[in-house]
Amino acid sequence: MIQRLSSYFLRTLRDNPADAEVASHRLLVRAGYIRRQAPGVFAWLPIGLRVKRRVEEIVREEMTRAGAQEMIFPGLLPAEFYTATGRLDDYGDGMFRLTDRKDVEMALAPTHEEAFTLAVKDLLSSYKDLPVTIYQIQDKYRDEARPRAGILRGREFTMKDAYSFDWTPEGLDASYQTQRDAYERIFKRLGLEYVIVAADSGAMGGSKSEEFLHPTPIGEDTFVRTADGSYAANVEAFVSSPAEPKDASGVPAPSSFDTPGAATIAAIVEQAGVPASQTLKNVVLALVDHEGNRELIVVALEGDREVDMKRLEVAFQPREVEPATAEDFAKHPELVRGFIGPWKDGAQFLGTEGTTGIPFYLDARIGEGSAWVTGVNEADKHVRDLVYPRDFTADGRVEAAEVRSGDQAPNGAGPITTERGTEIAHVFQLGQRYAEALGCKVLDPNGKQVTVTMGSYGIGVTRNLALIAEQNHDERGLIWPEEIAPFDVHIIATGKGAVPFEVGESLAKQAEAAGLEVLFDDRPKESPGVKFGDAELIGIPWIIIAGKTAADGVVELWNRRTNERTSVAIDEAIARLTEARAVTLVVTTD
Amino acid sequence: MIQRLSSYFLRTLRDNPADAEVASHRLLVRAGYIRRQAPGVFAWLPIGLRVKRRVEEIVREEMTRAGAQEMIFPGLLPAEFYTATGRLDDYGDGMFRLTDRKDVEMALAPTHEEAFTLAVKDLLSSYKDLPVTIYQIQDKYRDEARPRAGILRGREFTMKDAYSFDWTPEGLDASYQTQRDAYERIFKRLGLEYVIVAADSGAMGGSKSEEFLHPTPIGEDTFVRTADGSYAANVEAFVSSPAEPKDASGVPAPSSFDTPGAATIAAIVEQAGVPASQTLKNVVLALVDHEGNRELIVVALEGDREVDMKRLEVAFQPREVEPATAEDFAKHPELVRGFIGPWKDGAQFLGTEGTTGIPFYLDARIGEGSAWVTGVNEADKHVRDLVYPRDFTADGRVEAAEVRSGDQAPNGAGPITTERGTEIAHVFQLGQRYAEALGCKVLDPNGKQVTVTMGSYGIGVTRNLALIAEQNHDERGLIWPEEIAPFDVHIIATGKGAVPFEVGESLAKQAEAAGLEVLFDDRPKESPGVKFGDAELIGIPWIIIAGKTAADGVVELWNRRTNERTSVAIDEAIARLTEARAVTLVVTTD
Repeated sequence: MIQRLSSYFLRTLRDNPADAEVASHRLLVRAGYIRRQAPGVFAWLPIGLRVKRRVEEIVREEMTRAGAQEMIFPGLLPAEFYTATGRLDDYGDGMFRLTDRKDVEMALAPTHEEAFTLAVKDLLSSYKDLPVTIYQIQDKYRDEARPRAGILRGREFTMKDAYSFDWTPEGLDASYQTQRDAYERIFKRLGLEYVIVAADSGAMGGSKSEEFLHPTPIGEDTFVRTADGSYAANVEAFVSSPAEPKDASGVPAPSSFDTPGAATIAAIVEQAGVPASQTLKNVVLALVDHEGNRELIVVALEGDREVDMKRLEVAFQPREVEPATAEDFAKHPELVRGFIGPWKDGAQFLGTEGTTGIPFYLDARIGEGSAWVTGVNEADKHVRDLVYPRDFTADGRVEAAEVRSGDQAPNGAGPITTERGTEIAHVFQLGQRYAEALGCKVLDPNGKQVTVTMGSYGIGVTRNLALIAEQNHDERGLIWPEEIAPFDVHIIATGKGAVPFEVGESLAKQAEAAGLEVLFDDRPKESPGVKFGDAELIGIPWIIIAGKTAADGVVELWNRRTNERTSVAIDEAIARLTEARAVTLVVTTD
Repeated sequence: MIQRLSSYFLRTLRDNPADAEVASHRLLVRAGYIRRQAPGVFAWLPIGLRVKRRVEEIVREEMTRAGAQEMIFPGLLPAEFYTATGRLDDYGDGMFRLTDRKDVEMALAPTHEEAFTLAVKDLLSSYKDLPVTIYQIQDKYRDEARPRAGILRGREFTMKDAYSFDWTPEGLDASYQTQRDAYERIFKRLGLEYVIVAADSGAMGGSKSEEFLHPTPIGEDTFVRTADGSYAANVEAFVSSPAEPKDASGVPAPSSFDTPGAATIAAIVEQAGVPASQTLKNVVLALVDHEGNRELIVVALEGDREVDMKRLEVAFQPREVEPATAEDFAKHPELVRGFIGPWKDGAQFLGTEGTTGIPFYLDARIGEGSAWVTGVNEADKHVRDLVYPRDFTADGRVEAAEVRSGDQAPNGAGPITTERGTEIAHVFQLGQRYAEALGCKVLDPNGKQVTVTMGSYGIGVTRNLALIAEQNHDERGLIWPEEIAPFDVHIIATGKGAVPFEVGESLAKQAEAAGLEVLFDDRPKESPGVKFGDAELIGIPWIIIAGKTAADGVVELWNRRTNERTSVAIDEAIARLTEARAVTLVVTTD
């Protein structure tokens, strides 16, 4: 089909939107693809909807190939769907909620595990009905605290969410692998670089979970990987290795010493003459449940590392972890800020078995036999030669410390590096958590009721589109990969007289006849500069210019990505375009 | 493609859903197309989504043909979008509302006039940018007080809503006509009978409005039309003709008479010896605004007619009309229930100029010079020979009385008949109401700012699908028209041994190769009776049975609509099917 720019509901904008932090946001708005309606809520203008549809179509094709069946659930669901699984509380403010005119509580679904599980419970009854994988491509709602970066992290977004149902763990493994394979095909077709990392399964629950991350400096996630590619994990899922055990038999008994005013690691390092890595930092934190109840804990880690709150929250979810407040400290005068430690006067001080009874956790990196300089719960004093576990113990181990490049991978493959990335898909083995809570069972071959086992598999359609824009642009605008470009060719008629416009019209019709989708810039009064600038901003991969030379039978074929312009005879233009496309258009069909 | 029933997420149900009042609801649920999630909120199962997509595709094709451009807005919008136009109040409880985590008021959009207007305001600036018609196919939300009849009147539903923008009234007329023509093509392709009726423009505001109604006894709307087809109107938009003026010079002066206990029209008729049509019924009503303020009014109409509250509400919108309550009456002891009238003791009693000051309206049917028997505001008394307007007047005329078959059409085309129907589309000339409220202006050719003029055009996708099911079923199940059937052919393999299944498989592949979408019932253990019953319930228009005779090279071609079964050679089956489809598949391409 031919879309004429003279009547298209598309306006390019000269200025960047004031709140745009990233290139995809700037360019998608300026090139007329999206318009903001509210924080994190966007409308898709006609050309934007075309790109979105193409991404959806690739996802749909690969889901079909993976044997998944498409259906669709409403975005508005009764809140009670989420109560049996506890997710109404887990999501907290992240879920949009409302009451209807009859005061029934409703929710805008952030994800649909419960609804799909209930549908399967409703319709299927036998192991013979399984496996089944069903999915939808649907608008989701999450009331993000900090919607940002345009459609990269919106409050409304389009997602493909699939759910597999099996009755054996082996079945779940197979369904999971099928979806995982489909995702790899999708990202290859979208041309999006990805790394599959072990992930924390978070609010979803379940046993096994992997994230597809797109490595990008604007990513919100940190992941780690080894040089040999044998290990990759989201930083929240990274498992630290404890330091090698040491023989502490030669370490003297702990001895206190004066450290006037040394309430920071730096000051202790100076006064005690040891490196920060040999000081034990004791951080007071509060665990907060969804009703706001606070429990104080202390976490100890090497003095040269900071606590990574996101990693720590994994250990204590669904409770959130917050720094202790002045109010928290006021209730515990025994905690002398800057001088806290697990030990005092020869006895355990922190921990449920200690004097204070405050739960005390040790970072997973701390090794047996390690000797520490740390606080002794008295102002202006520290202790040295405090050996774990000779002199103090803990209520448990947690992954608390920040992860650093150079830390050891848990699989023995050597040091990891840390990188930034954005989650582009997530696959979960949910196991029986949802099916158990909602009573989704089938009869097994022996006629016995068994709870089904589930997986859930999500791809953010709109987020992926934004990342494709991030990965495919230059300072002048977008450069769409051919498989998801909104149009196949952008024909520009420009210059004096009727000839360029007649030639443009004729080429548009020829291109249409060749099965191409054509954007035809037939605007009568815009200058060549404006038209070329718009074409670069909009980012259709191929441009044909019918300009001054059109009267001589020549037009220009312009490759947006390489910026190469070739003069071609009008009669050959569409054939040349088709050839060039055949070279650059890579369709994955393995 | 081939979808095998053995692995399809589709289960037919034997029992009707308990709350199903209409055939489409019963059959779409039983045949596995939809499942209820909440009152008026449904999920679309895989086969249901296929039909929904086909309806959407027809709508989309005709929108494209009409030059409309597709885009999409979020379902979740800031409530403030609706405040400038007053619709937040107009919709009242009908709009789902919520507040986000930052206490910003949000709404689930019942319709998107404001959002589209703001987008045009945002992007366009000149008369040269117009006309433009933009549309979306989108899930809408309305908190209906009485969701019913499955997807016929849901709280979440899919709608195509288009909006035209012009800068002259003639432009609006043309855009309106283009959409109206597109709608006619859509309904012809969907095979849905329709009547275009003049309509009240309701909460939308605006100057001209027509509804497409589908005549059906289960319809919620009443419409009228003349036998010659020259006039048709929604009953709310019907304009009554006042009775011919009469010469009342010979009518004696009004005289009161005793009517002991005659507080009903029937009793007055008996005691006064006049037909009910010559008594004047005075109905006390309350107008209620969205803040709950009540104003009492009295409406007078012929005694043999009832007040049609929906018609009356058109006159007083956005206020709602309610019957007066005992409490209302308690505040007005001057109103003697059963004996109310406009006149008392020779003077105007009701009306802002009357003794009571209570606004008094006269039904539009009341003619000049008509003489009435009516109450005289005193218990057990009435008056006769009370002549309008000789003896009493009113504050205004309203369309209050129910419309009856036999009433005169306002265009002089004679009597109308009343029928039931369901709204399947609505076209509005909104004029400048929204553009004015939201400041949507463009520069005209003289460089002057002019407010744009708009139309809005809606088709309920899911409602139309339900009506197609209503119109296309029998006692055994659905019978889809070919253009929107979820599959083109339903192939059943049944019987002993492998042959029928091999033949079915081979035919399914041949049909797929011929470009048909195939549902293949390959279930190994279901009986022929179950398979045939499911096929009839599901309603694919063509069925091929590979059964007992398959071993002899013969299968049956079954027309679901006519119930005709023809034996055909296996080798010819797909060719015969294709021929038969060519006859029955009517594609409108005018």
